[in-house]
Amino acid sequence: MSSVLEQLGAALEQRKTASAETSYVASLHAKGLNKILEKVGEEATETILAAKDAQQSGENADLIYETADLWFHTLVMLSHLGESPEAVLNELARRFDLSGLDEKASRTSK
Amino acid sequence: MSSVLEQLGAALEQRKTASAETSYVASLHAKGLNKILEKVGEEATETILAAKDAQQSGENADLIYETADLWFHTLVMLSHLGESPEAVLNELARRFDLSGLDEKASRTSK
Amino acid sequence: MSSVLEQLGAALEQRKTASAETSYVASLHAKGLNKILEKVGEEATETILAAKDAQQSGENADLIYETADLWFHTLVMLSHLGESPEAVLNELARRFDLSGLDEKASRTSK
Amino acid sequence: MSSVLEQLGAALEQRKTASAETSYVASLHAKGLNKILEKVGEEATETILAAKDAQQSGENADLIYETADLWFHTLVMLSHLGESPEAVLNELARRFDLSGLDEKASRTSK
Repeated sequence: MSSVLEQLGAALEQRKTASAETSYVASLHAKGLNKILEKVGEEATETILAAKDAQQSGENADLIYETADLWFHTLVMLSHLGESPEAVLNELARRFDLSGLDEKASRTSK
Repeated sequence: MSSVLEQLGAALEQRKTASAETSYVASLHAKGLNKILEKVGEEATETILAAKDAQQSGENADLIYETADLWFHTLVMLSHLGESPEAVLNELARRFDLSGLDEKASRTSK
Repeated sequence: MSSVLEQLGAALEQRKTASAETSYVASLHAKGLNKILEKVGEEATETILAAKDAQQSGENADLIYETADLWFHTLVMLSHLGESPEAVLNELARRFDLSGLDEKASRTSK
Repeated sequence: MSSVLEQLGAALEQRKTASAETSYVASLHAKGLNKILEKVGEEATETILAAKDAQQSGENADLIYETADLWFHTLVMLSHLGESPEAVLNELARRFDLSGLDEKASRTSK
């Protein structure tokens, strides 16, 4: 079993070569890195605004939605530059010493 | 087995109540939401700069490092607002129909 | 004589009450502060990307265009919150002790 | 008479060659474009947060302060890339047809 981010990373790799007319992901790759990074910046701002509003309202639905958008576009960015989500997850696992777990096993076997 | 983000989410919950003098995470919570969101904004910018530099250099090490920083601070933000990484992962799984997997099972059982 | 930013600030005040169908500025005010701040965030990202590209290409045209977009949307933000560009220009003049000039006179006479 | 931004642009040009130990501006130039753009991104986020807080509190002092920080660091960015604030002000004047004014005269005489 792979984690959601790993599955999503694999799905994004497949869509990289799809038609830009039918796939949003393929259309982002076709437009190039700047367009992808503009989306990362936009979604970061929308996440920040959603967090401020969540603190006022006590409602987290928008915050979850915008954070998903932000993570998603960072995954497209990684894919565009030939990188996998695993590389980032491994970096996080290394920093926080998430040891004794299958994640570490899969990490050290790379 | 939990994914790295789920483990990290659990670790962040524990550190939420640690001493702000010994824990970076606890110090962020003590400083409040604006400080956490400033970090999200900073790390988004550093990720964007690292992506531009990676495209020039062909080297992804900084990009991985900065993306990890960005994801990490979004996790602290979620924790500060009482939200778990699972909520965001479930939203991503739902959008991309990552079906037939344990992730979906855990999602639908919520 | 007023500076460009002061003239623009005055023009923005007038458009605040225009029809949202014919005026971009009025449409931003109608959509509210979050929409205006999303634009500030977007234009900040586009300015950063244009600066990176300008350093590579030696061409500043896009950088000038994006910086104008960024300043423009910060002026709309100030107007939305009842603030004038003069307040920001006065803060900058104060910090940098731009003294002995008409700007200072106009500032202290407020 | 020059506007505050034009005076500040001229002051920034002088500090470009100052000692990085005594001048904040010179230290930014010494650290390079990425550091300057990180500051632009940081100040954009702080401006956005200040605007959200101003809407809640009705107090604009922080908003003015953070917007001044944002404009200031975009001026350092322009200077680093060999560009003047006049280029951005002229672009804004052109877009909004701020005609019949001395600003236009000084612009067309460049």
